[in-house]
Amino acid sequence: MYVSDKEQELVKHFPIILGGSGIGSIIAECALRVGFETFTIIDGDNVEKSNLNRQNYVEADIGQAKVSSIEQRLKSINPDVKITCHNCFLTESNAEGFIKGHRVAINALDWTTDIPLVFDKICQAHEIPVLHPYNLGWGGLLTIIMPNGLSLETITRTGEQFNELTMVDYVSSYLKFWNHPQLWIDEIVKKYKEENKQLPPPQLAIASWTVASMCTHVMFNIATGKPIKHFPEFYLLTLLNN
Amino acid sequence: MYVSDKEQELVKHFPIILGGSGIGSIIAECALRVGFETFTIIDGDNVEKSNLNRQNYVEADIGQAKVSSIEQRLKSINPDVKITCHNCFLTESNAEGFIKGHRVAINALDWTTDIPLVFDKICQAHEIPVLHPYNLGWGGLLTIIMPNGLSLETITRTGEQFNELTMVDYVSSYLKFWNHPQLWIDEIVKKYKEENKQLPPPQLAIASWTVASMCTHVMFNIATGKPIKHFPEFYLLTLLNN
Repeated sequence: MYVSDKEQELVKHFPIILGGSGIGSIIAECALRVGFETFTIIDGDNVEKSNLNRQNYVEADIGQAKVSSIEQRLKSINPDVKITCHNCFLTESNAEGFIKGHRVAINALDWTTDIPLVFDKICQAHEIPVLHPYNLGWGGLLTIIMPNGLSLETITRTGEQFNELTMVDYVSSYLKFWNHPQLWIDEIVKKYKEENKQLPPPQLAIASWTVASMCTHVMFNIATGKPIKHFPEFYLLTLLNN
Repeated sequence: MYVSDKEQELVKHFPIILGGSGIGSIIAECALRVGFETFTIIDGDNVEKSNLNRQNYVEADIGQAKVSSIEQRLKSINPDVKITCHNCFLTESNAEGFIKGHRVAINALDWTTDIPLVFDKICQAHEIPVLHPYNLGWGGLLTIIMPNGLSLETITRTGEQFNELTMVDYVSSYLKFWNHPQLWIDEIVKKYKEENKQLPPPQLAIASWTVASMCTHVMFNIATGKPIKHFPEFYLLTLLNN
């Protein structure tokens, strides 16, 4: 009723590249269950106990490579899944080789280096739309960088490096400007700046689940030629202020 | 940053009763990862292959009782989870025994009998708020029946039995009345009536993931004494029209 046979075929063979298997691990399962069957996942991290409060891992995965654990989970759901895993971190020199050939990308990389921006640039050069999911605890935020669209650097002040906080600050200002202030976001930004902690801000499963659904929906629209909003626009879903 | 130690303790010992382990299986995992650790789950069904497109089961679960499979999954994530499973269907005679002692209920039962309404009535008598999650394919719908609030029968025409379509029709009318029409919902209702199929309408993982997040958020608010909207109000989350 919702998905035609033709759309199901398009989705099935639409190759997704996932940079980062943290929040990416939740997105991958939702996408697989909707019918995406072709994944490349890149992450050099092992599963830690502290990931279990919001990522798609179980106790027995602790100490294992995230990519191996998520590969096992996806195969247990659908043995036909075509999944290529790279247990390493993305670098300026290996990124292009991994990225090319995909039709959509998810940038779920840590914002501790400029590698996420390099990832976007390479995707843009290869005409691949890039989804940027953000976990805001109580809400999911998603923006999409298009091949011919603006990059995230356009909202970064000179001399500063883009990170999650840049995006959240931008979203908060945008919503105030359009007369839809979201006070809970301002509260998060304020607390976060006070605590002056290392990035990224803490996250909750509530937003992981929301963002997984949002990414899957947007990828479905891209694969089937339906419209999507893209950066500098964004999607924000939460029960707060709903 | 988001959740205080006191709130974490409240959530941990807040007993949830889940009537139905279909969409309920996705809700349970999200709630567990946020810190809920006390579950009672009731479902007499076995896992079928057709559940895997939106429910929290894997191929190896096919043919097994849903409650055993979800129990195994939850324990693999957090061995400290306190989970009581009943591999049977709710009836007028067994429901009260299962329900009493819980602080929040999720009514994820099939609308093929009036048992879901009986479930609500018993919960109301025991002062237990009841969450009603609905999977609308592209969006999640949630309403909450409060101990002293209206029941779903108030939107049911005389001689008709309440089912998902009653709710979706109501939501569509409500949003039109308030000048926020959601045409995609009307389209679903129209197609559904044309196809004249057995309930429930088909579902997608996109809405399962959204609704899991919504239910977890609302249960968190109930457990920690924060405000929630309740029936005849509702929550609707989707990227469509966002």
